[in-house]
Amino acid sequence: MPYGDVMKARVRSEERRAEIVGAALAVIAERGYRGASLSAVAERVGLTQQGLLHHFPTKEALLVAVLQDRDRWDALPDTRWRVDLLVALVEYNAMRPAVVQTFSALLGESVTEGHPARSYFTGRYAQVRESIAAALRAEYGDRLPSGLTPERTAPLLVAVMDGLQYQWLLDPEAVDMPGAFRDFLRLLGEPVD
Amino acid sequence: MPYGDVMKARVRSEERRAEIVGAALAVIAERGYRGASLSAVAERVGLTQQGLLHHFPTKEALLVAVLQDRDRWDALPDTRWRVDLLVALVEYNAMRPAVVQTFSALLGESVTEGHPARSYFTGRYAQVRESIAAALRAEYGDRLPSGLTPERTAPLLVAVMDGLQYQWLLDPEAVDMPGAFRDFLRLLGEPVD
Repeated sequence: MPYGDVMKARVRSEERRAEIVGAALAVIAERGYRGASLSAVAERVGLTQQGLLHHFPTKEALLVAVLQDRDRWDALPDTRWRVDLLVALVEYNAMRPAVVQTFSALLGESVTEGHPARSYFTGRYAQVRESIAAALRAEYGDRLPSGLTPERTAPLLVAVMDGLQYQWLLDPEAVDMPGAFRDFLRLLGEPVD
Repeated sequence: MPYGDVMKARVRSEERRAEIVGAALAVIAERGYRGASLSAVAERVGLTQQGLLHHFPTKEALLVAVLQDRDRWDALPDTRWRVDLLVALVEYNAMRPAVVQTFSALLGESVTEGHPARSYFTGRYAQVRESIAAALRAEYGDRLPSGLTPERTAPLLVAVMDGLQYQWLLDPEAVDMPGAFRDFLRLLGEPVD
């Protein structure tokens, strides 16, 4: 194949992948984690299941691609990253339970032996802890008002976000996820409305 | 059947259930969540898989029974429940990754539609939040040093425990689970060594 055709094929394949990821997100939003089957996603983009498997060999691989896409959208350039923006992220998450459910269910599975999403989550958490520590350091310096270092605060902040998601998904009436997250930021000394 | 025989049969059935739950815990400890199949558990207690299904109709039902058993062992009578004992619980959990993995994987699954463990977890969290709020109230009264009420602190405390478990299971070298939990208790104003 001439070079131009190779490039065109690659671009087409990437567009197709993006289209599939978008369709998966729509199916998740409509039917939830369990309803998001490869066949439902294939149908939505007009592929056979075999054709879909060419792009994503397993449901887990497709779901990881969906979450990576979300990470990309949610991330801000490092220099603009700020702790208070996390409040907006948690409020946004409270409006999209299907995506939060997908994230939480896949995170749960990923801690089992040899799960295909394990390396995604392990890498993601290392990176998220680092970004949050950097944002805390930019805001507070070496110590937060509590006396904790940014590096020791970051895993707690991430843990609160994840843990609240489970409680909220199980019992949305009983758990005010954004309110609880604001409470936690106040514990850290963050000025929150 | 005479009444005495009915009672004997019931006791035998309960003993059998307890034996199965114990065997499941042992299989989980050896092989992890994925390796804990009904057939492996049946083999260990000398039952056919059919015989095991008589006591527990699904793997999820058996795992919920294991977690309920753990809840029973970990719980202290309400009057003796104290916040600082949670440090010991988290330290203990750090020595039994297989049980924590089972809990975390099943919690993840439970947030999906119609999952058999969903009502167990929903009920458990309502009860755990209530017990923790009561313990905080006994220690601090209406407000913690942070100004938060016990009822608003409880979901954060539970979230930190759960969230840290995921980070620790994924990357035990990078995450000091008991140390991070002690950091959180210090944020609350708890005197921790």
